[in-house]
Amino acid sequence: MNILIRGAHLPNDPYSARTDVAVADGVISAVGKIPEDFRPDETIDASRRALLPGLVNAHTHVYMSLFRNYADDLPLHTWLFDHVMPIEDTLVDEETYWGDMLNFAEMIRTGTTCFIDMQMYMRSVVDAVRDSGIRAVLSRAIVGKNRFDEGAVSRYAEAMDAIRYAKETGCENASFMLSGHAIYTCGEDLLRFLAEKSEETGLPVNIHLTESRKEFDDCVAEHGMTPVQYLDAVGLLDRHVVLGHCVYLADGDFALLARPNVHVVTNPASNAKLANGFAPVVRMLKEGVQVALGTDGPSSDNTQNMFSAMHLLSLMQKGAEKDATAMPAGKVLEIATEGGYKAAGLADRIGKIAPGMTADLILIDETAPNMLPQYNLPSALVYSAYGTEVTDSIIGGKIVMRNRELLTIDEERVAYEVGKIAGGSKFRK
Amino acid sequence: MNILIRGAHLPNDPYSARTDVAVADGVISAVGKIPEDFRPDETIDASRRALLPGLVNAHTHVYMSLFRNYADDLPLHTWLFDHVMPIEDTLVDEETYWGDMLNFAEMIRTGTTCFIDMQMYMRSVVDAVRDSGIRAVLSRAIVGKNRFDEGAVSRYAEAMDAIRYAKETGCENASFMLSGHAIYTCGEDLLRFLAEKSEETGLPVNIHLTESRKEFDDCVAEHGMTPVQYLDAVGLLDRHVVLGHCVYLADGDFALLARPNVHVVTNPASNAKLANGFAPVVRMLKEGVQVALGTDGPSSDNTQNMFSAMHLLSLMQKGAEKDATAMPAGKVLEIATEGGYKAAGLADRIGKIAPGMTADLILIDETAPNMLPQYNLPSALVYSAYGTEVTDSIIGGKIVMRNRELLTIDEERVAYEVGKIAGGSKFRK
Repeated sequence: MNILIRGAHLPNDPYSARTDVAVADGVISAVGKIPEDFRPDETIDASRRALLPGLVNAHTHVYMSLFRNYADDLPLHTWLFDHVMPIEDTLVDEETYWGDMLNFAEMIRTGTTCFIDMQMYMRSVVDAVRDSGIRAVLSRAIVGKNRFDEGAVSRYAEAMDAIRYAKETGCENASFMLSGHAIYTCGEDLLRFLAEKSEETGLPVNIHLTESRKEFDDCVAEHGMTPVQYLDAVGLLDRHVVLGHCVYLADGDFALLARPNVHVVTNPASNAKLANGFAPVVRMLKEGVQVALGTDGPSSDNTQNMFSAMHLLSLMQKGAEKDATAMPAGKVLEIATEGGYKAAGLADRIGKIAPGMTADLILIDETAPNMLPQYNLPSALVYSAYGTEVTDSIIGGKIVMRNRELLTIDEERVAYEVGKIAGGSKFRK
Repeated sequence: MNILIRGAHLPNDPYSARTDVAVADGVISAVGKIPEDFRPDETIDASRRALLPGLVNAHTHVYMSLFRNYADDLPLHTWLFDHVMPIEDTLVDEETYWGDMLNFAEMIRTGTTCFIDMQMYMRSVVDAVRDSGIRAVLSRAIVGKNRFDEGAVSRYAEAMDAIRYAKETGCENASFMLSGHAIYTCGEDLLRFLAEKSEETGLPVNIHLTESRKEFDDCVAEHGMTPVQYLDAVGLLDRHVVLGHCVYLADGDFALLARPNVHVVTNPASNAKLANGFAPVVRMLKEGVQVALGTDGPSSDNTQNMFSAMHLLSLMQKGAEKDATAMPAGKVLEIATEGGYKAAGLADRIGKIAPGMTADLILIDETAPNMLPQYNLPSALVYSAYGTEVTDSIIGGKIVMRNRELLTIDEERVAYEVGKIAGGSKFRK
C-alpha cells in the first residue's frame, strides 16, 4: 500500500510551507521531493492540514473505559476500593474487549496512535489491538507478596501467554512490557523478580510510582527509603522502566531518575482529579529526567484525549510553578511524541517525519475556528486545539481514520455492546 | 417561530427519561406535556441528545481572537506590554468585527450562548452580536486617573454611544455594563465615578480584580487595603459588580464579597497560563460568594470553549485543594449556567428549562465515544466532553446552529477576513 500525502504543513514550518510525504509498505519513503516513479494507491489532500507524528498516551488502563463517569468526585480510596475494584475483578474478556474498543475509538479520533497500557485482561486487549490497528505496548499488572504468591504466578503466566497469543494471532502492532502494579502492592521479592525477569527477557517494566503522599510516606516509614530509592534498591532502575505518576519526589530522587533507561509518565488530569496534586515536571526536565505524557485510565481522567492532556500539562505546570514561560508548547509536543516513543522503546523507528521511519501519522484540520488565526502551530495544538481537529490517522502505513471516519472500528456496534455491559447487573448500583 | 424539541435528556434525569420541550416566540412554553394545539415550525429530534441551558462565558475580551496563539509562553508583562497592547491600540472596528465573529463561531460551536465582555471596540461588537444572534453583556473598559481624564471621558462616551447604537440598529440580544479596567489602571476618583454612574443609570460594573500577586501587594502598599477592601471603600461593592479573577484574597475579603450583588468570575485557564495560580474558589463557595466561570480573552486562554473551562475548574480546584470531592460536576455546571446568568443580571429570565423562561438552549450528542457509557450526565459534561458534542444552539428562540452547522455566521468568510488581518502589517513580527 502506497500513500501520498500532498501539501501538508509540518509543525516547525511556517503555515505557507507545504510538504509532500510518501508512504510505502508502512514506512515513510520520501519527504519533500517525491520520486517520479512513486505510484500511490491513495492520495490524501493535506493542503489545509497539519501533519504530525501520532501522539503517544504513555500511561493508561484502556479497559477502564467501561468505568468512565461511573464514580466521580470521591476520595481516592472510596473510588478505588468501593466502586472500581469490586467490579473490575468480575469482568471477563468478552466485556473488556468492548471497553478497549471504545477507548481506541476515542484515542484514534483524538490523534493517539500508540499507547502504553497496564492491563488485567490481556487476551481481549490483544484482540482489540489487532482488530483496530492501533499500536500498543501491553503489560499485565502483577501484584503479590513474593514471586511464589499464587496470584503473582498466575498473572506472570498471563503476561507470557499474551506474548504468545499476539504472535499466534498475528497482532503485529503490539509489543510488551512486564508490570508490577506498584511498590505498595508488590512485595520486595516480587519487585526483584521483575528486575531479574526483565534482564532475562529483555522486556521493560511498567509500574506506578509515588502517586500519592501516602505512598511516599508509607515507603519511607517501612523501608527507610523514598519510593525512587526503593525502586533503585530492588534493581529496577537499572532496567528500562516506565514509571507512572512520580508526583512526590525528594530532592535526591531527581538525579536517580535521570538515566537514559528511566522514563517518567506524568498524568496531569488524573493527578489533579484524584487530588494528588501537580507533579514536579519542570524540575524533572531541568534535572535531565526523561518525561512522557499519559491520561491514566478513563475512570480517573475521564477522557483519553491527549490534546486535553497536553493542554493540562502546560497550564498546570505554569500555574503551579508560577512561571508563564514554563512548559512551552514545543516542549509539550516533544513530550507527547518523542518522550512517549522513547518510553515505549520505539523511538528508533517511530515519531519523526523522516524517510525510513514507520508511518504513524496524524493529520489535523487547521481551519477550525479555534485554530485561527494561523500564527503558530505548536501553540494552536497545545493551547487551542480540542483534539477533534484530527481528521486522518495512519498507523504502520495503514489508514485507520479517513476524514474523521473510523475504518477499523464499528462505533455503532461498540456503543451497543458497551451499553449492554454498562446497563447490566455488574455496574448497577 | 415555534420549535418542538422531542425526547431530550435533561441533566438531572436518568438517561432513560426523555422530555419534550416547546418553544414559542422565543420563550419556553411547555416542558413535558405539550399542548395538543402546539404547531411547531421546526421539530428537533433530540432522542440521542441532552438538553441544557446555554453556557455563560462570564469573562472574556472577544475581539482578542485576533491575538490567539500569537504570543504564548511569555511572562505576563512581556506578553501584555510588548506584544498585545502595541497592536491592540491600532485596531479598527472593521478588523475587530471579524475577531468577534471568529470568537462567536467558536463559542456557539461549544455551547456558549451568552457572554460578558470587556471591550475596546464597541460598535463592531454590537454589529457582530446582532449579526450572529449570540447573547451578550457588553462593557467598554475605561482607564484613567480621574473622571476628567481625556481618555476616561472619551471611553465613557463610547460606552454610552454603544447603548444608543444597539438600540438604533436593533441589536436586541445585547445588554450593557459599565467597566473600569482594573484598580491599577483607574484612579480612585474614576472608580467612585463608576459607582455613582452605576447608581444613576442602573448599569452594573465589570472590572478585573486581584488577578496577580503584584496587584494585591501594590494595592496594600499604596492604599493600606486589600483590592477587595479598596473596591468596597470606593463604593463599588454596593453595586451589581462582576469581578474578573479574584485569585489573591485575604481572609477578611471573602465575607466582603459574599453579597447578592457581587459576582466573582473565575478564569482557571488564564490564571494558570499567565502564572497567577489557582483562585480560592472552593473557599469562596464555602463563604457564600457567588461564582461564575469564564475563559478570559483568547490571547491568554487560548480557547473560548466553556467545556474546557469547566474541566479545568474542577481539576485544578481538586488538585490545588488536595480534595477529590471538591468542585463536583453538578456544582461546576451550576456555576457555568446559573452562576453566569446571575452575574449577567439575566437569571430571572434565562438559565432554567422551565415554562416562561427565555429559550437559550443547547443540545449535546450523547453518543460520542467519550460520552459513553451513559452513567452520569453531569460527569460526562464536565469530565469527558470536549465541547464539540454540542449539535444545536438556540438563542432567544432562534436556531443559530443546527446539526453543527452555523446558520448566522459564514465561517469561510470569517476565516478569510481573519487571515487577511492576521497576515497584515500590524501583526507581522
